[in-house]
Amino acid sequence: MGGDHAPREIVRGAVLAARELGIRVALVGQPALVEAELAKNAPRPEGISLVPAGEVIAMDEHPAQAARHKKDSSVVVGLRLLKKGEAAAFVSAGNTGATLAASIMYLGRLRGIERPSLVALLPLSGRLTVMLDIGANADCKAKYLLQFAEMGSVYMQRVWKVERPRVALLSIGEEETKGNQLAQEAYALLKQAKHLNFVGNVEGRDVPAGVVDVIVTDGFTGNVVVKTMEGVANFIRGQIEGAIKGNPIYWLPGLALRGAFRGVQKKTDYREYGAGPLLGVNGLVFVAHGRSDALAIKSSLRVAREAVLSGMLEALRPAAGRESAEPGQPEPHDSPAIGTAGT
Amino acid sequence: MGGDHAPREIVRGAVLAARELGIRVALVGQPALVEAELAKNAPRPEGISLVPAGEVIAMDEHPAQAARHKKDSSVVVGLRLLKKGEAAAFVSAGNTGATLAASIMYLGRLRGIERPSLVALLPLSGRLTVMLDIGANADCKAKYLLQFAEMGSVYMQRVWKVERPRVALLSIGEEETKGNQLAQEAYALLKQAKHLNFVGNVEGRDVPAGVVDVIVTDGFTGNVVVKTMEGVANFIRGQIEGAIKGNPIYWLPGLALRGAFRGVQKKTDYREYGAGPLLGVNGLVFVAHGRSDALAIKSSLRVAREAVLSGMLEALRPAAGRESAEPGQPEPHDSPAIGTAGT
Repeated sequence: MGGDHAPREIVRGAVLAARELGIRVALVGQPALVEAELAKNAPRPEGISLVPAGEVIAMDEHPAQAARHKKDSSVVVGLRLLKKGEAAAFVSAGNTGATLAASIMYLGRLRGIERPSLVALLPLSGRLTVMLDIGANADCKAKYLLQFAEMGSVYMQRVWKVERPRVALLSIGEEETKGNQLAQEAYALLKQAKHLNFVGNVEGRDVPAGVVDVIVTDGFTGNVVVKTMEGVANFIRGQIEGAIKGNPIYWLPGLALRGAFRGVQKKTDYREYGAGPLLGVNGLVFVAHGRSDALAIKSSLRVAREAVLSGMLEALRPAAGRESAEPGQPEPHDSPAIGTAGT
Repeated sequence: MGGDHAPREIVRGAVLAARELGIRVALVGQPALVEAELAKNAPRPEGISLVPAGEVIAMDEHPAQAARHKKDSSVVVGLRLLKKGEAAAFVSAGNTGATLAASIMYLGRLRGIERPSLVALLPLSGRLTVMLDIGANADCKAKYLLQFAEMGSVYMQRVWKVERPRVALLSIGEEETKGNQLAQEAYALLKQAKHLNFVGNVEGRDVPAGVVDVIVTDGFTGNVVVKTMEGVANFIRGQIEGAIKGNPIYWLPGLALRGAFRGVQKKTDYREYGAGPLLGVNGLVFVAHGRSDALAIKSSLRVAREAVLSGMLEALRPAAGRESAEPGQPEPHDSPAIGTAGT
């Protein structure tokens, strides 16, 4: 039920994922609404099921309160499917804060992770960079940033098959001594972490350039940066459109260039990459963009399945990771059902 | 001697400012080099003079060490002119860190200001917004942000004639309770400051939108944001150029659209707005972009003169500001000489 285009686009995306990718999807939401959308996308693929959830958390509700009190919301019901092992991963395009709060509340944190983190996918350069944290933790300690680096690295290895992901710290200069106190302390920790491929600092101008695989920062800076990027991109798009529309002599060449503009847009389209993971909770949770359409949801479900099949969650547990290599501990590799509250 | 195009563009800009705006400019630098550039721009306007400075601080030198040891550098010699009252303002396109360090070292801070601050000019929307701090203070206390707000407000009033400048705090949500600890504490201080027109929080996406006159933040976040904006803008420009060049069918419409693209670029051109002030030191110091050309330098000198004529420095001194209203304290209003180390 969550997201700007729910349940229509969420149901469409789930149907596409089931039909084209063979993913089993449990749609969590108000049955009448979900059934109506499913009817529009008939025939219903075999892998689609429906799990009723009567309540909806609105996009502007107080996250923690909504997560605590709306126990029959699609988010909470979906996370419970995950907790009980009836789903292998959970995707939501709904209220991000509520998904974060409910995930910590109902799934708990992974052992050794003090602060779960929201991840931004930045595919701008045509090469995926992830940045974390982007808002779950406004105030951070240096050791949290080290944990973000570890989690981001595992995610890029497992889901995107990047060997030895290049990890960088966001700061205001290349040298170790640049940055605020947090950045300098985090640099020292990251430099010592021999299991990471830490390549040093990057600056703001490097963020869209795709020069590294993982960028770590505190949730305040990360959130401001992601929103600034969005703001600048929207602003420039608006300016160019305005300049073209503002003068009839530009209409025809503007039309002719549409293909080129679309190419740029497609290259930088987050929808191909699906949802960003919520790393550090005890379950595979993916937060899709609020404005996700069917393509974005299909991609999100594909990425969620990849996370399941790759054993990402096990790899994120330093201790459990070793255990899972022992016999008698099969990983849930066959056709997982993925709960989605975006319905 | 500072800046990517020094001394050529700096001298050209100074000559334009003297010729077209009647500003008296003292060019500070190595005489032979400066004279050679002046000869190329003959005839030499009356208002141009030359103050010798034998040393040069390179763009990549350690700021504080260079400022301390290179006493015959154009930056230090220029700031001494200012200190002695032989210049009314100082403009540099050189090493920003060195200009900052030397300004604090040789001019001192204004009474009541704990941390001088670097200011970014953001004219993107066609309406100027200033943001501070953008790198002078990586770690900030809430009271510094209050002082930034006060200084930014005075600057917008005096130099850009904005009545009751709208001041906002950069954060990660609109509500008072959003943000990291610093932002929440700063919000409380700003709300109480009845002499300011504080309008609340803005988010990253509002930064390019020109919705307020002054945005305050710590120097770490501010620096990252300014560089991110630059990175995204460059990235999008490169993508569009690449898409057009990459396919011959787009060459002709691309050419035809040049005027529209130029219009967008001109609207967002920082060069029309000149240099950003270094606020909080005991003198009028302006930091021009390292890649400043003659137009940017001319604008910087224009803005510096406006700061002098408007009594900005007096207004920045809460105590001295009251004194200057008394008789017998004329402000230096006639044709000030403006030192520039950018030569």
